[in-house]
Amino acid sequence: MVRFRSFSLTAFLLTLFAANISAQQKKPLRFTDAHTLTITGKAWDSEPFYHRLDTARYAALSGTLKRLATHSAGLAISFKTNSSTISAKWQTSPKRPSDNMTGIAYEGLDLYILQDARWQYAGVARPSTHDISETTIVENMADGEKTCLLFLPTYDEILCLEIGIDAEASIVPNTNPFRKNILIYGSSIVQGASASRPGLAYPAKLSRQTGYHFINMGFSGNAKMETAVADMIAPLPMDAFILDCVPNPSAEEVLERTANMVNTIRRYHPNVPIIAIQSVAREKGNFDQHIARRIKLKDQYFRQEIEKLQKDDDNLYLIEAEGLLGDDQEGTADGIHPNDLGFERMLQKIRPTILEIFAKYGI
Amino acid sequence: MVRFRSFSLTAFLLTLFAANISAQQKKPLRFTDAHTLTITGKAWDSEPFYHRLDTARYAALSGTLKRLATHSAGLAISFKTNSSTISAKWQTSPKRPSDNMTGIAYEGLDLYILQDARWQYAGVARPSTHDISETTIVENMADGEKTCLLFLPTYDEILCLEIGIDAEASIVPNTNPFRKNILIYGSSIVQGASASRPGLAYPAKLSRQTGYHFINMGFSGNAKMETAVADMIAPLPMDAFILDCVPNPSAEEVLERTANMVNTIRRYHPNVPIIAIQSVAREKGNFDQHIARRIKLKDQYFRQEIEKLQKDDDNLYLIEAEGLLGDDQEGTADGIHPNDLGFERMLQKIRPTILEIFAKYGI
Repeated sequence: MVRFRSFSLTAFLLTLFAANISAQQKKPLRFTDAHTLTITGKAWDSEPFYHRLDTARYAALSGTLKRLATHSAGLAISFKTNSSTISAKWQTSPKRPSDNMTGIAYEGLDLYILQDARWQYAGVARPSTHDISETTIVENMADGEKTCLLFLPTYDEILCLEIGIDAEASIVPNTNPFRKNILIYGSSIVQGASASRPGLAYPAKLSRQTGYHFINMGFSGNAKMETAVADMIAPLPMDAFILDCVPNPSAEEVLERTANMVNTIRRYHPNVPIIAIQSVAREKGNFDQHIARRIKLKDQYFRQEIEKLQKDDDNLYLIEAEGLLGDDQEGTADGIHPNDLGFERMLQKIRPTILEIFAKYGI
Repeated sequence: MVRFRSFSLTAFLLTLFAANISAQQKKPLRFTDAHTLTITGKAWDSEPFYHRLDTARYAALSGTLKRLATHSAGLAISFKTNSSTISAKWQTSPKRPSDNMTGIAYEGLDLYILQDARWQYAGVARPSTHDISETTIVENMADGEKTCLLFLPTYDEILCLEIGIDAEASIVPNTNPFRKNILIYGSSIVQGASASRPGLAYPAKLSRQTGYHFINMGFSGNAKMETAVADMIAPLPMDAFILDCVPNPSAEEVLERTANMVNTIRRYHPNVPIIAIQSVAREKGNFDQHIARRIKLKDQYFRQEIEKLQKDDDNLYLIEAEGLLGDDQEGTADGIHPNDLGFERMLQKIRPTILEIFAKYGI
């Protein structure tokens, strides 16, 4: 009810805003509430529609984690249309992008269209300086039906979203184009910092490249393997888990919490593969000896804990940090968060290993 | 005189600001005005210190181009220090970053230190939400002298800059570590959009990778080969010119202005290599047929004009657009501006060709 009321107000504001810029529009568009289409990237079919999780169900979760779960990282709207133009009106929270991300990645939209059996980039929706934005994503497209996937902001909450098409065109929900469910739990790096577009966050890239449904459970600065998070994640209906969660916890927390994280998942999923990844965030320690020591210690503790668990667990794997970002230290935006070059290098290393493991399990 | 007065006011504001945050500092730092150090990346030794060109000398230049010349794209401060900490206080204009760039690239700083004969990333200075920022770039470094290069913002003007070191450490100017002078004239892509850090703009990467002194003459949205620009660039004391200027002009402008651009340079430099590059900005035309046609036409006209000129000019080269950003369309932030992945792919293609040409000329 609250959601509906808030959406109506938003719709009213959007109408005013749209009226204001209608003079610029080349031809009339028809807008469809994205609620009527399919959303992908969610662990399960929960409300609110644009939140990654219904955090009201998880009383033990901290307020910060609940807020981060409202960010639409990894979510995408799946639809088909024969329109020559695709446009968007959307509203996000009043937050402004952080200095290590683009506004497009933080609170914009990123469209891909299936072509020659590949998801091809079609256009971004660049956010305005206000919280309500309206823009053309792509226009002048050839005739014919397009199978579309519109990735939502990685670091903001979508309050409402409408997709615009040519007035005479049609738009219909598509099925989720990705198969199986693989949860990636991690830090800001999983959530999407510092990819330049929402669809270049690494779980989203992995989904498009492999066809698997990777679920983005990145919680910026807060992936500390807390018991409440382990309890939340473990029962989810997953075919595999990826734990990329060394960057945020302290070395002591890595030592104390890794076993509980893995064991909690194991209680619900005795035999699914769990793939643990050491910390990708290391360039800040290139000259800073304290940070270098801290990262090394965390990776060492993580390996030690995983190796202990592996003695009784044949379905637990470790991917080492070595070479994840290449060797020229040009793979991050700020010494911590991979840029698009860093993410591509990371995927070149982890993708073959992940696919090999999945093949072994018939996933 | 005006500059000095403005700097004094700034220094006063910085003092107030520094006093405000001094409680957070771990140990006292000593600040040095970067004016007393060496600046690299400039076509010649002109004032104002932090502007790429002294535009007061070029009456025919448009106001927009004059403003863009105040952006410090490609400029870097060259110094040596034995400090364990390097910090910065700096002031930029009140502009806010555009949505296809990070704040760090737009108005932050990016430090590299020479190690094992390579320029290695050491840290960024992340801008505050105010125009005056102060932050630690790197700390806890090992003893010994460090040879440093601090890249300045790509899309903003530096109004003042002070570099902080340990109170007991020393800081001295270093020579320009790069040899020869190679001017790259182009659009926002040359200026640095959408690299994630100032030092990842492609002319800066090329300098660090090759040791040549590439001069960033990127003018965002305004590299249209105007006569005033040709007249400004042509007499500069360069060993080679790179023309990466197809993205901004219209197809007609490419047709009308390319010959004048090349011929004007030739009047001052009869025999230096001039390397022309077709447009890297093409992903926006992936589905938009109008844009695809326009880019194709501009590239075709550019090739046609360059090939005509090549008949009487053995020192004029063309690098084709094919494959500049790879083939997966994931190399831009917004369909136009390369992200770090796109820039790295672009360099993998153009760097060997550029080096081969330079070798031929003994550059």
